[in-house]
Amino acid sequence: MSGAKNIFENGLDQVAANHQSLSPLGFLERAAAVYPQRTAVIHGDLRRTYTDLYARCRRLAGALIARGIGLGDTVAIMAPNVPAMLEVHYGVPMVGAVLNALNYRLDAEAIAFILDHGEAKVLITDREFSATIKAALKMVKQRPLVIDIDDPVFTGAGDLLGEMDYEAFLDEGAPDTPWSPPENEWQAISLNYTSGTTGDPKGVVYHHRGAHLSALSNTITARLGSHPIYLWTLPMFHCNGWCFPWTLSVVAGTHVCLRRVEAQEIYQAIDTHKVTHMCGAPIVMGLLINAAEADKTPLDHPVEMITAAAPPPPAVIAAMEQEGFNVTHVYGLTETYGPAVINAWHEEWNNLEIDERARLKARQGVRYPVLEGLAVLDPETMKPVPADGKTLGEVMMRGNLVMKGYLKNPATTDKSFAEDWFHSGDLGVLHADGYVELKDRSKDIIISGGENISSIEIENILYKHPAVSEAAVVARSDEKWGETPCAFVTLHPDRQDIEVQDIIDFCRDNMAGFKVPKTVVFADLPKTSTGKVQKYVLRERAEAL
Amino acid sequence: MSGAKNIFENGLDQVAANHQSLSPLGFLERAAAVYPQRTAVIHGDLRRTYTDLYARCRRLAGALIARGIGLGDTVAIMAPNVPAMLEVHYGVPMVGAVLNALNYRLDAEAIAFILDHGEAKVLITDREFSATIKAALKMVKQRPLVIDIDDPVFTGAGDLLGEMDYEAFLDEGAPDTPWSPPENEWQAISLNYTSGTTGDPKGVVYHHRGAHLSALSNTITARLGSHPIYLWTLPMFHCNGWCFPWTLSVVAGTHVCLRRVEAQEIYQAIDTHKVTHMCGAPIVMGLLINAAEADKTPLDHPVEMITAAAPPPPAVIAAMEQEGFNVTHVYGLTETYGPAVINAWHEEWNNLEIDERARLKARQGVRYPVLEGLAVLDPETMKPVPADGKTLGEVMMRGNLVMKGYLKNPATTDKSFAEDWFHSGDLGVLHADGYVELKDRSKDIIISGGENISSIEIENILYKHPAVSEAAVVARSDEKWGETPCAFVTLHPDRQDIEVQDIIDFCRDNMAGFKVPKTVVFADLPKTSTGKVQKYVLRERAEAL
Repeated sequence: MSGAKNIFENGLDQVAANHQSLSPLGFLERAAAVYPQRTAVIHGDLRRTYTDLYARCRRLAGALIARGIGLGDTVAIMAPNVPAMLEVHYGVPMVGAVLNALNYRLDAEAIAFILDHGEAKVLITDREFSATIKAALKMVKQRPLVIDIDDPVFTGAGDLLGEMDYEAFLDEGAPDTPWSPPENEWQAISLNYTSGTTGDPKGVVYHHRGAHLSALSNTITARLGSHPIYLWTLPMFHCNGWCFPWTLSVVAGTHVCLRRVEAQEIYQAIDTHKVTHMCGAPIVMGLLINAAEADKTPLDHPVEMITAAAPPPPAVIAAMEQEGFNVTHVYGLTETYGPAVINAWHEEWNNLEIDERARLKARQGVRYPVLEGLAVLDPETMKPVPADGKTLGEVMMRGNLVMKGYLKNPATTDKSFAEDWFHSGDLGVLHADGYVELKDRSKDIIISGGENISSIEIENILYKHPAVSEAAVVARSDEKWGETPCAFVTLHPDRQDIEVQDIIDFCRDNMAGFKVPKTVVFADLPKTSTGKVQKYVLRERAEAL
Repeated sequence: MSGAKNIFENGLDQVAANHQSLSPLGFLERAAAVYPQRTAVIHGDLRRTYTDLYARCRRLAGALIARGIGLGDTVAIMAPNVPAMLEVHYGVPMVGAVLNALNYRLDAEAIAFILDHGEAKVLITDREFSATIKAALKMVKQRPLVIDIDDPVFTGAGDLLGEMDYEAFLDEGAPDTPWSPPENEWQAISLNYTSGTTGDPKGVVYHHRGAHLSALSNTITARLGSHPIYLWTLPMFHCNGWCFPWTLSVVAGTHVCLRRVEAQEIYQAIDTHKVTHMCGAPIVMGLLINAAEADKTPLDHPVEMITAAAPPPPAVIAAMEQEGFNVTHVYGLTETYGPAVINAWHEEWNNLEIDERARLKARQGVRYPVLEGLAVLDPETMKPVPADGKTLGEVMMRGNLVMKGYLKNPATTDKSFAEDWFHSGDLGVLHADGYVELKDRSKDIIISGGENISSIEIENILYKHPAVSEAAVVARSDEKWGETPCAFVTLHPDRQDIEVQDIIDFCRDNMAGFKVPKTVVFADLPKTSTGKVQKYVLRERAEAL
């Protein structure tokens, strides 16, 4: 021992008794030990207890071990929110392997790229996606072991492609298969490919430490209480379902699986199972409030809806509240384990008018308790922008909810972690009260006559026009101004009488002249598999006009 | 990079952007940023916002830096639950120093021992304890810088002993003093001496990582929700108030300070401030239910009471429920950041009779979500005892809620961490449902004719006698049996008519013959400064009989 150490650094080292790797896996072991008979999973008519769930996860671990799968091996899955999708979140990392949940909206080419890039040794795949997977498997350089999920709830057509059935595979493993948490909490737990609008997908790697902290943090920020009933309206392939497969075990909650996110099924599940919490993009809220009255079952208890990806507009918040949902707005990226920023609500805001409440709720907000840093910085100088709600900067994060990095992509990893911050690529402002508000992706900013114009700002105003159903604004090259805003607008079906000039006039009445779109096009909006508008497609269309 | 590494270990290292030390200090910074105007502290007529609290903690940090206090230096405090006591939990570790909160029930000799052993460089002391501190300062080998807390709420007598006043000291530091979390989360944050019933106190060292995880865990297990109003009935010197000084910042709760834990004041504070949560030993519950009716203010909202140190008896639970408190039973030691085990409740138990509910609630329970291991082991073989609710073993813990070790005591540290478990010294059984129940401290077991007798078991039966107010059972040497149980009993004031033989007869009717105390003595029970019965004193008395 060096004499230079202080007294608190002598003979007080980490040993097994006082230091264990952080991992979310132990939460399931605990839930099964403490609440063995509690319902962990509901899927159609199926009910499984925590004892069952834990045993099935250990069976999966045992079966993987028997096939030689272990530390650092990738296991991919292509499935909707079915029980197997939940089980792989435990069974795969129990053996030290890394879970790669695939976005089932991708095409075969993208899936093949990901399987090759992630070096998947096993692929577990639901019959529903056999057409895509069949095509993808023809393209991959190395065919993984393929295991089919033949879900009885699935009523459609679909081939069985694999060497064996998921249930038969589980039978190869013992329900008491021993497992241990990772020796190092920095060990990878999952791999999630970002569905970028351009370029090859990037493989975002999560670690056990981050997943553990995200689970604790979700429990607190989503106010899960004891034994929440959680409805799976958010795809589990999306940032590992924002880490909720692990989170629910902290409080021994119930997972209500859902193959198809449709209004009638959601309302029925809420009613039947007394759902308390659900997560999802605004599209889920749209489904719920725009559902036919016949498809709605009135809520007899409040439901917490946690939403991300786009700020909920006033009309949506008001309609959701009227249905009985309490909406919480969060923000994050695949690189931050899903949400890491929350629109932390203030009780005194409850008394404000709906428009003002919506304005406040549209802001992305403040850091999660376990995200150590959140800032809006000038990416050139790395200095914070003034908290004036106006000056644009890049939103950056730092801390234990930031990914391990991009797989086999050290250059992009280093670049995204430059200057000790994770660069989100999102542009935003900092308000006087410390709340961050997104204004745009870097590449979506329109620079017109030297002025920066936020496309989101224009879109928000377009959404206020009663005839506008959807809107997206991109830059269009202009000889005089460099760029000008070009708006693509989808009208409500019963408001097809509206003219382009009406929209332009409306903009002129509601924004500075230089921001008014020079071009307005009525059209359906092209979207990515996760529902993001493909602005690069619109930019191409705008240029071709 | 070694080729033997798997793909998830290449170029995916820890950097500042994705890895930060876990520490509870950032929770306060966040609370002050997000809820600047929310009331953080109530003390008498005083109200302080989170802005104020954070600024005062940074002033304290600045003042400490100005005096040369930094990494690994010890700052001691002798104070009741006043605002300064809360502030030191942040201001001291902000500069890398270690907080040593002293037990104000100790005598001067013990305090002097602790100040010397912990090498305190600063001592912050409340006027109320000036007699003890004055005497202790005459005994210490190295006098620390002494700072007086002159709390306006304190109405008693007491000298000022120090170089300066706490408020003047704070004025030496800037409210925007910069600080950073520790570079290493294993860094010590506090030092708590155990009030052992024999021998010198041992200095238990906590680290930032454990305090962070304890704060998150408390938030979940105590179901703090958003903005709890927390009443300080548990001394903050006791395991850093079970880490609640840090915990409350996670959810921007309100600390209601309390110099004196008296029934009338507690009821008034609950009513005035709408207290939602409080912690404390059973003595606090005794105060509340035995209070004169004139001192009670009926609760108009439910209050969560989290209790530890001894299982709450049925009568106490019933009476607390009748007053409007919901009682949660937890268990831990100074070595485990306070509670690390919880009597996790099952909804279906609510329908049971009070005696059965109390029997279930008296069990210590299961591990906290962030304690990785809890077991009842045979300390000789280190094998788990059968889950039969009968076989005695030693309760052991493992994981991130176990201390760094004992200060300057590597031999005892190593011994307590032997075989990769922390040895609690508490004896207990494991029930079939996985719940641990304490039976005794190792040294409190009575071995009579080769049979182990749990002194707690006899005490629990004695408590069922309507005339018994308090009871403690110890071993007394016996020529024939080796040891026999000797009971010390305090009678209720109005039941002084009871005879020794009545108690013995009652025991004979309610337990195996070999367990019946051979000796029963009516007496007041000697207690430690934290209210634990001093069994070693009783053992001496028993031998002297």
